[in-house]
Amino acid sequence: MKIAIDAMGGDNAPQAVVEGAMQAVSHYDQLEIILYGDEEQIKPFLTSNTDRIAIHHTTEKVENDDEPARVARKKKQASMVLMAEAVKNGEADACISAGNTGALMSVGLFKVGRIKGIERPALSPTLPTVDGQGFLLLDVGANVEAKPQHLLQYAMMGSVYVENVRHIKEPRVGLLNVGTEDGKGTELTKQAFDLMNDAPINFVGNVEARDLLEGVADVVVTDGFSGNIALKSIEGTALTMFSMIKDTFSQNIKTKLAAGLVKSDLKGIKDQLDYSEYGGAGLFGLAAPVIKAHGSSNGRAVFSAIKQTYDIVEKDVVNRIQADVEAMNERKESHDG
Amino acid sequence: MKIAIDAMGGDNAPQAVVEGAMQAVSHYDQLEIILYGDEEQIKPFLTSNTDRIAIHHTTEKVENDDEPARVARKKKQASMVLMAEAVKNGEADACISAGNTGALMSVGLFKVGRIKGIERPALSPTLPTVDGQGFLLLDVGANVEAKPQHLLQYAMMGSVYVENVRHIKEPRVGLLNVGTEDGKGTELTKQAFDLMNDAPINFVGNVEARDLLEGVADVVVTDGFSGNIALKSIEGTALTMFSMIKDTFSQNIKTKLAAGLVKSDLKGIKDQLDYSEYGGAGLFGLAAPVIKAHGSSNGRAVFSAIKQTYDIVEKDVVNRIQADVEAMNERKESHDG
Repeated sequence: MKIAIDAMGGDNAPQAVVEGAMQAVSHYDQLEIILYGDEEQIKPFLTSNTDRIAIHHTTEKVENDDEPARVARKKKQASMVLMAEAVKNGEADACISAGNTGALMSVGLFKVGRIKGIERPALSPTLPTVDGQGFLLLDVGANVEAKPQHLLQYAMMGSVYVENVRHIKEPRVGLLNVGTEDGKGTELTKQAFDLMNDAPINFVGNVEARDLLEGVADVVVTDGFSGNIALKSIEGTALTMFSMIKDTFSQNIKTKLAAGLVKSDLKGIKDQLDYSEYGGAGLFGLAAPVIKAHGSSNGRAVFSAIKQTYDIVEKDVVNRIQADVEAMNERKESHDG
Repeated sequence: MKIAIDAMGGDNAPQAVVEGAMQAVSHYDQLEIILYGDEEQIKPFLTSNTDRIAIHHTTEKVENDDEPARVARKKKQASMVLMAEAVKNGEADACISAGNTGALMSVGLFKVGRIKGIERPALSPTLPTVDGQGFLLLDVGANVEAKPQHLLQYAMMGSVYVENVRHIKEPRVGLLNVGTEDGKGTELTKQAFDLMNDAPINFVGNVEARDLLEGVADVVVTDGFSGNIALKSIEGTALTMFSMIKDTFSQNIKTKLAAGLVKSDLKGIKDQLDYSEYGGAGLFGLAAPVIKAHGSSNGRAVFSAIKQTYDIVEKDVVNRIQADVEAMNERKESHDG
């Protein structure tokens, strides 16, 4: 298996990317990695496994303030663009970047393309739950406006991924809504509810944002705008609370003493809520796996994202999604006819 | 001033409601309260200030599973319905319930009615921020589908409330969005952005859900669906984290010792994030103040909601909103003409 990686993407690039790559090839015998980026910057960190880690040199890279839609045309030699092209040309099976999310969605769509029958790809991170199982949230912003049919496809793609890669049998699929009762919400959620209810998935109905971290569903489906709001509200609240706790514990000798006593336990909570542990966010619906690693990824998070990508390729998630969407479309046609 | 209160609404009714009412009339010399509900259940708790707290007896009440839209017609003698009718008939200046939110929105709209020129009322809680200032979020679910013009009116109503009741001069108004750059989001947010940019408010542009608790704006405007998702994501994350922290501290003797040392400090964090301290959620846009107190309100939270309601009446928020919306509509007409 060959995975193409944007070595210049993310806050800690290229060091974190190179470290994650080295860990990954040590872990998987059959894995080869191509790093796209500035050879001079990459080489000092590339201290092992150089037989299965190649460098594709380029000095151009995508910046965080680059306009996503223009990247593929304006920065043809950027590490992110060349990485996606390698997938398009069949030189790699999948690709990963921790860089500009919007640019990656655009480059993915433009270079790798969609699975036939999938109308919109969905950006899909796995978020933490208290039981450590996690849940897949999609879409968190690939498409801010969605139609009921898109949400149905998200549900189906999410089910395929969670069942095959996260090994949860018949994953529970929930529709994010303002209440748990049937018939709640907007025209979009009402129509999506009916579609999902009729689909060959384990649909558990509407779920509320309040219950997400409690593990109310394995796959949570929503439009990209609401999903983005949910994701960032959860992230923001957790970060704010950790910073408040940190301030509290550094107030005086007494609190510092307490901090010493529970340091490792509180670290445990932080780890439990750290979603880089669950890998990156998949751009499901593209014709090959394209994974967005968290921007602040360290070497370990990059390694997690590579493991996840490896599993997606090995479990043939893209072809399974394609088969399911074809079956669903045939079913719909025979139903409509 | 006379405030009508649904004594049977909320998880701790009627005790919490009666306690809050007694505290409030002790606090304000000029305040009279009418409690709507079952006299037999109310009386045992009503131990002081009976000269300015009246009971309007009724045994019917709204349940949490009552269908909101039918309550006003099907439960004409319910404490919540009678309370709203008292406002409609001019027997009270404002009303408060900690009961069924959907029912209160429906009863408020049906009985109290809208301010002329306001198309949609907005349910508007004040959420906590780390600096203790708090921010008003609207709408969190009065209307799950919104038009740009509605968001503009939310912005205007929120500004009037925060400036007059929360005493923040020229409150910063933000539009909840998936990114902070101009031009982000859906058709709704793009059009609302332009309207808000041209309006006589202190518009600070798009704000992200991640930054809400950091106090990025004093008034945050969004459609009822997204606002509900944001509110419940924040609530859910905070509750989950507090429960994880509690579990962590009760693990063993060492952690219990630490808990003893920081108990009051952690309580401080909890208080800081407790939004019942900021009063209830206003249903702005109705022709008189209708306030939704939190369902789990204790006596102190009911007292907070009464204080807030008192300020809204005293500061004449409803008439100020009406004046502003008239000015805005005239401005629009002269602009269009």
